[in-house]
Amino acid sequence: MSKHLERDLDNLQKDLLALAASVEEAIHKAIRALQERDVPLANEVIDGDSDIDEEENHVEEECLKVLALHQPVAVDLRRVTSVLQINTDLERMADLAEDIAERAVALARWPAIPIPGDLQRMTDLTSSMVRQALDAFVNLDAKLARLVCRLDDEVDRYNKSIIDELILLMQRSPDMVEPGLSFFSATRHLERIADHATNIAEDVIYLVEGAIVRHRPAAVRGEDS
Amino acid sequence: MSKHLERDLDNLQKDLLALAASVEEAIHKAIRALQERDVPLANEVIDGDSDIDEEENHVEEECLKVLALHQPVAVDLRRVTSVLQINTDLERMADLAEDIAERAVALARWPAIPIPGDLQRMTDLTSSMVRQALDAFVNLDAKLARLVCRLDDEVDRYNKSIIDELILLMQRSPDMVEPGLSFFSATRHLERIADHATNIAEDVIYLVEGAIVRHRPAAVRGEDS
Repeated sequence: MSKHLERDLDNLQKDLLALAASVEEAIHKAIRALQERDVPLANEVIDGDSDIDEEENHVEEECLKVLALHQPVAVDLRRVTSVLQINTDLERMADLAEDIAERAVALARWPAIPIPGDLQRMTDLTSSMVRQALDAFVNLDAKLARLVCRLDDEVDRYNKSIIDELILLMQRSPDMVEPGLSFFSATRHLERIADHATNIAEDVIYLVEGAIVRHRPAAVRGEDS
Repeated sequence: MSKHLERDLDNLQKDLLALAASVEEAIHKAIRALQERDVPLANEVIDGDSDIDEEENHVEEECLKVLALHQPVAVDLRRVTSVLQINTDLERMADLAEDIAERAVALARWPAIPIPGDLQRMTDLTSSMVRQALDAFVNLDAKLARLVCRLDDEVDRYNKSIIDELILLMQRSPDMVEPGLSFFSATRHLERIADHATNIAEDVIYLVEGAIVRHRPAAVRGEDS
């Protein structure tokens, strides 16, 4: 690999990590706004999304420049296309954080609803999935990527327990139907953020091992390699 | 452009259109299963998702081959990276159709809920957005792509009217909370399918005009060019 390509790939990676850090911060702020009925904080997340979009556009343009300038092949080419796909996943996560923030604004208009206990645990786990998926990419660590894929099941369990709580609440009180529905949407958005982290982890496994594991649970667990 | 590259790009395009047709069929079947409480049809969609995943993997591998073999530059390079991104959007749409089918299976366990009148209109519009976004890509038609972006607002209006109906239903009867929530999820999935069609249309505008219009409503409307 030429020195110039190596330097450009390193820069791409740095830009991607900066974007990931912005996205992680947006997720945490959006959930805090939801829990604490903090409308100004929610608006901060909503207003901040355009900066994240610009970061994403920048990464995409840099990827295309690297492709055009160096015409990389084999593993270098796969690294660039992985950056393109991870970039898209990160941007969608930021959109979902914005969606959560919008739900937080809506929820502040209704009477407070009891915050399900699993929400913070689900948020912490999702956030650590995002971080570990990016770590797996930077270190080309397929083992860590597989761990991220498995954590997604745990997020789904938290999501299910939160939904069960919300159903009971809405059944007991018609006043809780509208806020319950908004809260349901917010936790679904969080669950989808975890799905995007899983997509990234699957891209990393593909990058490291050359095998597409998406849609193949056994391959994610490392059973059919 | 070399003849070989031209032929390979044409083939990529054909594979992508075949994938799009499969995805459109899955969307229609999933909604029909939802409306008609048809569990076998829902299961057909769920079982068919792995075929669609294989189609998507095939397109992705072909893209990487074209990049490695021809090392295209400029507009040809953008065509290939567009195929990669459209491919991902189509696969996510198929996943959402599968999610709708899963909701149809769940809903069949509960008493029937009245189907909101706007659901069929929302489905038809979403499906035509998918078709027109792909047409816009094949014909490099930025005008059509902009139309698709605008149609997304109409889908959002249908979605809102369906949610309003569901809220009333759930408020009136606690028995409707669980099926109402499932139905709410299904229509949200449909709305997200329309979002993915919008993503494709935005990619087409980028491909044709070289400007990233994502996240820039004025640019989508063609006002700031």
